[in-house]
Amino acid sequence: MIRNQVGFSAEQKSESIVFDVGGTRFETYSGTLKKLPNTKLFNLNRDSPNYRPKTNDYFFDRDPSIFRGVLDYYRNGTLHFPNDICATVVRRELDYWGIDEKHVAPCCWEFFKLYSERRATAELLSKAMGFDRGTVGKGKTRRQSLFEKSRRPYYSYWICFALLLSVFTTIATESDAMRVPAAIPRLRFNDTNNPKMVRFETTDPHPVIVAVDVLLAAFFLWEFITRAVICPQKWIFFTRSINIVELLAVFPQAIAINLRYMVPDMANYPKLYFAYWILLMFDIFRVIRLLKFGKYYVGLRILIVTLRASATEMFFLVYLMVVGAVVFGVAFYYCEVWTAATVIDMPTTIYWAFITMTTVGYGDVVPQTIQGKVIAVLCALAGALFTGLAVPVIADNFDRYYRQASVILLRHRLGLPIMTMLPGATKTRDQAWQW
Amino acid sequence: MIRNQVGFSAEQKSESIVFDVGGTRFETYSGTLKKLPNTKLFNLNRDSPNYRPKTNDYFFDRDPSIFRGVLDYYRNGTLHFPNDICATVVRRELDYWGIDEKHVAPCCWEFFKLYSERRATAELLSKAMGFDRGTVGKGKTRRQSLFEKSRRPYYSYWICFALLLSVFTTIATESDAMRVPAAIPRLRFNDTNNPKMVRFETTDPHPVIVAVDVLLAAFFLWEFITRAVICPQKWIFFTRSINIVELLAVFPQAIAINLRYMVPDMANYPKLYFAYWILLMFDIFRVIRLLKFGKYYVGLRILIVTLRASATEMFFLVYLMVVGAVVFGVAFYYCEVWTAATVIDMPTTIYWAFITMTTVGYGDVVPQTIQGKVIAVLCALAGALFTGLAVPVIADNFDRYYRQASVILLRHRLGLPIMTMLPGATKTRDQAWQW
Amino acid sequence: MIRNQVGFSAEQKSESIVFDVGGTRFETYSGTLKKLPNTKLFNLNRDSPNYRPKTNDYFFDRDPSIFRGVLDYYRNGTLHFPNDICATVVRRELDYWGIDEKHVAPCCWEFFKLYSERRATAELLSKAMGFDRGTVGKGKTRRQSLFEKSRRPYYSYWICFALLLSVFTTIATESDAMRVPAAIPRLRFNDTNNPKMVRFETTDPHPVIVAVDVLLAAFFLWEFITRAVICPQKWIFFTRSINIVELLAVFPQAIAINLRYMVPDMANYPKLYFAYWILLMFDIFRVIRLLKFGKYYVGLRILIVTLRASATEMFFLVYLMVVGAVVFGVAFYYCEVWTAATVIDMPTTIYWAFITMTTVGYGDVVPQTIQGKVIAVLCALAGALFTGLAVPVIADNFDRYYRQASVILLRHRLGLPIMTMLPGATKTRDQAWQW
Amino acid sequence: MIRNQVGFSAEQKSESIVFDVGGTRFETYSGTLKKLPNTKLFNLNRDSPNYRPKTNDYFFDRDPSIFRGVLDYYRNGTLHFPNDICATVVRRELDYWGIDEKHVAPCCWEFFKLYSERRATAELLSKAMGFDRGTVGKGKTRRQSLFEKSRRPYYSYWICFALLLSVFTTIATESDAMRVPAAIPRLRFNDTNNPKMVRFETTDPHPVIVAVDVLLAAFFLWEFITRAVICPQKWIFFTRSINIVELLAVFPQAIAINLRYMVPDMANYPKLYFAYWILLMFDIFRVIRLLKFGKYYVGLRILIVTLRASATEMFFLVYLMVVGAVVFGVAFYYCEVWTAATVIDMPTTIYWAFITMTTVGYGDVVPQTIQGKVIAVLCALAGALFTGLAVPVIADNFDRYYRQASVILLRHRLGLPIMTMLPGATKTRDQAWQW
Repeated sequence: MIRNQVGFSAEQKSESIVFDVGGTRFETYSGTLKKLPNTKLFNLNRDSPNYRPKTNDYFFDRDPSIFRGVLDYYRNGTLHFPNDICATVVRRELDYWGIDEKHVAPCCWEFFKLYSERRATAELLSKAMGFDRGTVGKGKTRRQSLFEKSRRPYYSYWICFALLLSVFTTIATESDAMRVPAAIPRLRFNDTNNPKMVRFETTDPHPVIVAVDVLLAAFFLWEFITRAVICPQKWIFFTRSINIVELLAVFPQAIAINLRYMVPDMANYPKLYFAYWILLMFDIFRVIRLLKFGKYYVGLRILIVTLRASATEMFFLVYLMVVGAVVFGVAFYYCEVWTAATVIDMPTTIYWAFITMTTVGYGDVVPQTIQGKVIAVLCALAGALFTGLAVPVIADNFDRYYRQASVILLRHRLGLPIMTMLPGATKTRDQAWQW
Repeated sequence: MIRNQVGFSAEQKSESIVFDVGGTRFETYSGTLKKLPNTKLFNLNRDSPNYRPKTNDYFFDRDPSIFRGVLDYYRNGTLHFPNDICATVVRRELDYWGIDEKHVAPCCWEFFKLYSERRATAELLSKAMGFDRGTVGKGKTRRQSLFEKSRRPYYSYWICFALLLSVFTTIATESDAMRVPAAIPRLRFNDTNNPKMVRFETTDPHPVIVAVDVLLAAFFLWEFITRAVICPQKWIFFTRSINIVELLAVFPQAIAINLRYMVPDMANYPKLYFAYWILLMFDIFRVIRLLKFGKYYVGLRILIVTLRASATEMFFLVYLMVVGAVVFGVAFYYCEVWTAATVIDMPTTIYWAFITMTTVGYGDVVPQTIQGKVIAVLCALAGALFTGLAVPVIADNFDRYYRQASVILLRHRLGLPIMTMLPGATKTRDQAWQW
Repeated sequence: MIRNQVGFSAEQKSESIVFDVGGTRFETYSGTLKKLPNTKLFNLNRDSPNYRPKTNDYFFDRDPSIFRGVLDYYRNGTLHFPNDICATVVRRELDYWGIDEKHVAPCCWEFFKLYSERRATAELLSKAMGFDRGTVGKGKTRRQSLFEKSRRPYYSYWICFALLLSVFTTIATESDAMRVPAAIPRLRFNDTNNPKMVRFETTDPHPVIVAVDVLLAAFFLWEFITRAVICPQKWIFFTRSINIVELLAVFPQAIAINLRYMVPDMANYPKLYFAYWILLMFDIFRVIRLLKFGKYYVGLRILIVTLRASATEMFFLVYLMVVGAVVFGVAFYYCEVWTAATVIDMPTTIYWAFITMTTVGYGDVVPQTIQGKVIAVLCALAGALFTGLAVPVIADNFDRYYRQASVILLRHRLGLPIMTMLPGATKTRDQAWQW
Repeated sequence: MIRNQVGFSAEQKSESIVFDVGGTRFETYSGTLKKLPNTKLFNLNRDSPNYRPKTNDYFFDRDPSIFRGVLDYYRNGTLHFPNDICATVVRRELDYWGIDEKHVAPCCWEFFKLYSERRATAELLSKAMGFDRGTVGKGKTRRQSLFEKSRRPYYSYWICFALLLSVFTTIATESDAMRVPAAIPRLRFNDTNNPKMVRFETTDPHPVIVAVDVLLAAFFLWEFITRAVICPQKWIFFTRSINIVELLAVFPQAIAINLRYMVPDMANYPKLYFAYWILLMFDIFRVIRLLKFGKYYVGLRILIVTLRASATEMFFLVYLMVVGAVVFGVAFYYCEVWTAATVIDMPTTIYWAFITMTTVGYGDVVPQTIQGKVIAVLCALAGALFTGLAVPVIADNFDRYYRQASVILLRHRLGLPIMTMLPGATKTRDQAWQW
């Protein structure tokens, strides 16, 4: 140091050292730098290319605002950063100064982690939305080609319409208002006390609905088989959950329709008739098939990604609700056991506790005793509290995902890159830190 | 560079260059500036008017805090800004330094976009509140004149009172407590099993209510016709939704009243009587007409703007609810089909699923079987979750709009400008970026 | 400027001017300062006491970080501040530099206003909590003396216990389980179909409860009269709402008790008996009297302050609910008018709409028709949405108030001042700006 | 000062003094420093080791960004800090400069306190999660050894499974579907009108369930006794709430089982039979025992810590609900007392008010009169408002705890320290300040 050379070192504890970082001047004692071995500044001396004899300082062409935090780390042993600086920048500069990110102080680390979580979310979302980098490199992947196919608007509009129409016919078939008296009298294999069975035996769906239903069944059967045949990877095709749903929606219906036309008097064969009835129940998969909308509607895909990411929190809500319902249900059972008014067993009281905790409150099971009423009030309050505790955590996740997704969508539309590239970041370290 | 002139350039990789930006000193290597072509600093040389030979630096009369980020962009290739600086300032400075806003790094871009969204919201809100710049330029527009008219307090108070009174008479007319035995015996065109029909046939509304109703009908008819006649743009008048509502509220009522007095024995002509009955149903538009309050109540206008802006999110909530209700409704139908206890068809189970998911839970349809109860519990949990997911997103929007609107109102009252003018911003670029 | 003197002014548009603000150097063209008249720097020249000839700069002993924003205001005409700086500091510095706070740019003004709102809230809360400055100056005010009285723990514990006990006897008196057969047979002035009347006629409250009730009535009567007599400002005493409630709780009960003992056979005088019955209904004020807890429980006072401050938002929620309920109620009436199943008039359907929108859903009125069910579903969705929109706004207010109140409480306990004193702030300007 | 030496002090009010804090230059008048006695800078003079004659300034090897705020405190008397700087850093620097943290201005103190609350939360959480520093020092504590034991996976899996199975058998025992006709006919000590009693008398649980139940009872008895015997501190063992719950779950069941097998004809001894029946009711503790999951499931422990920390807010919610329910319940009673339709007393109307305020709305008690309906609507709106006010405050707490806990877990897994050590912080001051 120049001051040292001109001889007043006695006034100071150790040599003073001056830095010029991007034009801003920093000064410290040289002893301060010796506190942290294995860092860039530890071994700094005048042979360094950064040393400038004329001004007797060390010049670094870096951002001065981060260096302030770094120098403070040497001085005080804890590494802090203002939380308005981007964690990506902090990380890059720490890399340059040879300091491990692990040393960021716990109080500032949380902001740091927040940024890194955003990054992880961005990666997850851009994958779910089909903008992931993976597909860019290796030409047309299957997913991408499907995505493009979905962009042929008329076909995708038709698919969506057909899906909705299929759900509508499912409902219409079992709707009182859309059934006509049965053409062929049928055997009643079931008791006449159940009005739903009586309706099923004595009426038929409206012929127009039957016709639409058959045509749609044919179309979806053709579409499913075509896709299965075209797809080069049969194994992947039949293990994707959406295709299994479609399989269960398409084939049982096809068999049921064939059965209806080939054995018009099947009502005479009770076992066959029962089997036919079971096949009809697969109609539920025609409704679940609505998830195919996700291929065309990005919001649904975001929802699915979010729900998957919130699995822990959702398990927590379910756990709270189940424990709460069992505790209150059992307590309610023992409170109400003394009164003759209602016939209830424990599964029913647990059901009652669930219905009370979710504040649905049908009123089919209600407390009759004063102690039962107290339990009901506590159960309702606990429900409000538990829902109030767990739902905001999940909703917060969803809100964050939703906002990021809309930003990613906008950037994709403007043709901008979705993530900041980190120069020296290797995958393994990224994963270890959940960057 | 002065150092270069005195000959120790050999010690450095490239020339050092010094900036004085608003009094703060920045330093970098001149090679760094060559990384980004098409920017202001790329072509910097000593012939620049900013060069000061005496101090051998470049002086710029700009804000140093933004320049730090700009210089860092030259050094590291990514453009970051502390998120406590206003995006308007960042944008203005980037404009000055010749850098496109698109290059802001993805991690910082979201804060950037947030600011721009606030701006878009401010524009939308000030338009909805009648403070939009458009009306300032071209003198008195129709909207503005209406707004001023609404500031004549007595008239607007009267209108609001008349609207409320009109709704009250609508309700009172169909209220048991305010009906008196009918003066003229009437033919019963409908079955006597329906007590509502019997009431309608055997009683009349109280004469005072009838009188008020007729006077209000006359007033609103006069007011509507006057406004329609005065308005210079007939086409716009009759396409505004509020006027259509008013039309449907005013004319059917006028015809019904005339009918009542001109054909006192109309009960003898079933078809005419039925038509009269249908006309009465248009009373619902007298309630919807309450939206006119929005002309006088700014909160309602903000709500309408928000609901319009949240259309996507609301569609999402409805989508979730509809898909959920259909899935749970169909599943519930097949669970409960085996029990004789309740007569239900599929539209009813879907209605049940909606009522359960919104946690209303009337209890008119309740599960009888154990599997039905499980579906009911899942349905209630899904409903709590779906509402919990979508409502916060919409509420967040509303909260944001509501806060901004109150700020805008306050600034308007203090006579301050509502938005920061951006010097070089052209409309087209603004729209592309949703600024 | 020194550079100007040495003759290279030709290279520059206007003179350069250097500031040393608290040790930090700022530089701009002197022409820049001429843009804003009526500010401190506008008239700056070398005769200023801040001018230092040796260094040819202007020294100001102020915070440099705010000055940066001020100087930028001269350069670009808009006044921005980083949102991490306290608005109190910004205000103080703007005062020093002679700039009106009104000129803060709209984008940054909102943060500014947020801080000022916090200040207003702090004032409101400290007043509600009895820490307001007003009471410090003028010795012992009535409120303060009451507050101190409430700190005599045993008496206040007893008051709270008596209040609760009084509510308990109110409930116990009308509770089936705590009534014994009536000692004196009584005339039945009312129909025997109403079981509540029959109970009232044939049973008496348990004697112990009656005794406790009479003693409590005597105590509260004595306490009320004492306080009324002691209080020097009778007018203020009888206009405070809590005292009116107490009046209505104490006197009717005293009269009723006297009546019971003085006219044991009052059941023979129907009119007197009816009057006695009406007096009993004033028991509701004994429950409302629980608000007196607020004198001892700070959370309740905070709640009351918050609810008052949220009046606009609460009116908004009520407005939304009322309009929604009327619209859906009227629509529901016309949907259900065709079916004979339920007897309903319009007030009932509006009640139904309220019960559905708040998701309570008793099930006493349920839709019977398909169109009625659709209205019910829409009504439930609208209710979830409306509650979801308005409640967070109010809850947000409450959360903010609650947090501030806990900070104020803690500071009060630590003996620290509750608000930052603003040196030059006059009351009038404060109010105009809602500071 | 050098300027002073060269003689132009007359131009200035007081001497100028220059600081070099970590390389950044600060300047003020020396008189400014005399405003605050008892601080480090108050006694600053040229004999200080920080004085450097050559540059005539005072060098401090500290962070310049905090010093700016400190110097401003000398200038203006209020101490502010940008809210993006970590409170730990602020605290350390204030310590260095000899300023008490109490002097931080009220407006900035709240941010300060927020940080300190985070610290307190971190301490609480790390204790709850078993990572507290206390256990590190004194070797293996009981808690730690239990924690390690719980990490032997197979045993803990078995415990969890046994707990769940035990709850399942509790439910199955009282479930209609899983009971078989009783082997031994029994005396009916109770009325035959109560179907639950009839079921209890005429049927027995399925033998398999009984067998599992007995085996589980034996296991839990053995496990409890073993743990009680091993535990060195008997007193602590039997005062921990979880062990009391277990005691009440284990022993009554054991006695009941023994009774059943030793006195097969106990139905002949009504008193013994009744005692047996009471013992069965202790089954509820087998459900509450599920809280033992907390030992293995960190989320539950976090929930318990949060609920304890939110005790004030939860008491507030309960307080609001209770007062609201009593007010609305009493009002409802007096509204409905005139109608003969329903038999209700005041405890029932208060129960009704609770069920309405929590929006459960069973519909077993519904208003019959118009005034009762108005009370019901107000009650429902108040409930929505009160829940909306209190739940977010608690949920916010939970959200904060939950996030911090996940950060702590992650840091623990990465082997990083959980809290920043504060160099000079003594425990007592920490507590006084709730740091």
